[in-house]
Amino acid sequence: MKKCKIPEATINRLSIYSRFLELEELNGVVTVSSNEIAKKIGITPAQVRRDLAYFGEFGTRGVGYNVKDLKENIMRILGLHKRWNIALIGAGNLGRALINYKGFSERGFDIVAVFDNNPNKIGKIIRDKKILDIKRDLEKTVKEFNINLAIVAVTAINAQEVVDDLVKAGIKGIINFAPISISVPSDVIIRRVDLASQLEVLTFNIQNKNLYSK
Amino acid sequence: MKKCKIPEATINRLSIYSRFLELEELNGVVTVSSNEIAKKIGITPAQVRRDLAYFGEFGTRGVGYNVKDLKENIMRILGLHKRWNIALIGAGNLGRALINYKGFSERGFDIVAVFDNNPNKIGKIIRDKKILDIKRDLEKTVKEFNINLAIVAVTAINAQEVVDDLVKAGIKGIINFAPISISVPSDVIIRRVDLASQLEVLTFNIQNKNLYSK
Repeated sequence: MKKCKIPEATINRLSIYSRFLELEELNGVVTVSSNEIAKKIGITPAQVRRDLAYFGEFGTRGVGYNVKDLKENIMRILGLHKRWNIALIGAGNLGRALINYKGFSERGFDIVAVFDNNPNKIGKIIRDKKILDIKRDLEKTVKEFNINLAIVAVTAINAQEVVDDLVKAGIKGIINFAPISISVPSDVIIRRVDLASQLEVLTFNIQNKNLYSK
Repeated sequence: MKKCKIPEATINRLSIYSRFLELEELNGVVTVSSNEIAKKIGITPAQVRRDLAYFGEFGTRGVGYNVKDLKENIMRILGLHKRWNIALIGAGNLGRALINYKGFSERGFDIVAVFDNNPNKIGKIIRDKKILDIKRDLEKTVKEFNINLAIVAVTAINAQEVVDDLVKAGIKGIINFAPISISVPSDVIIRRVDLASQLEVLTFNIQNKNLYSK
């Protein structure tokens, strides 16, 4: 693998490719071409080849890609050839929804510990997990379960303090659902999930359909 | 506006530009260059100019963009110069989290009605909204409140039936949180929010940092 900056759009597409290949494999398909992948996903075949070329030579010219091999390679590139232990911070409605979210465990992500700072919640059980005290239990739990990733589902007001605690405990990757920008040191990756931006793609399309049809 | 296919990545970036411009405006900044926008967002200035060029001529060569004008133009392009009424389907943990999500109303999205099919939930109140019966109340409520968009926060098993009901009621844009692919007619846009793919960008980065550092 060359040491070069991979565009985030490429990484996002790797996720999409791997899901498509998973389905193809389930359907018994043995080889696919970049054209077939591209058509299914709505991009150009050249883009598919460019994305994969960052990571080596996978296909055979004129034959295409072996579905199982390519899927396994992409899973390895994404780090999904193993399972990841996740800490969830925040046992409110969103936290409860995320604990029950089937899509995580399917992709190898296990929420192994849940934390909150609310004394009324600490010690209660959700989905067979006891809610732990973020101030008292975070560091030792992160070590005990070898946790690298955390999901922050707390209010905007609490988010920076929670993230500071996570960084101190050794967490290297964070998904932030709080509607606020958070600072982290350069060796930690944080991504904000902005649910409104999903709606904006819809309004753009509806808005422009109306413009076009006039 | 030309009738041409706008890449989805461009639409996503418009959202990001508009948030950046909003902050700049709050900070009293009057003009920005494509370089400044690009640097803040981590893309090339050429990409910024290309994204905006789909929609017309906005900046002045050598001067840059007027922050307020560009923000307002982008908001209009995204359809965010007005507010949108949203139907939420599913009053479980995720539904409850979404009703309380501050990020929607800030961007002009109002959840005006909540539906479920569970008799134990129908009639109960969450956040000053009575939970309505999807089978009995959907069509008339969509008309009454002029609802164009819906958020589906139900289980995978129920998702296709719910979406069929939404389409029948006249909904044109749908965000689907259920971990399953859903079919819709060609005049309806549906987007699946896959929360696991957010984690995969983290694991990719952690995985490759480890590889690089060896």
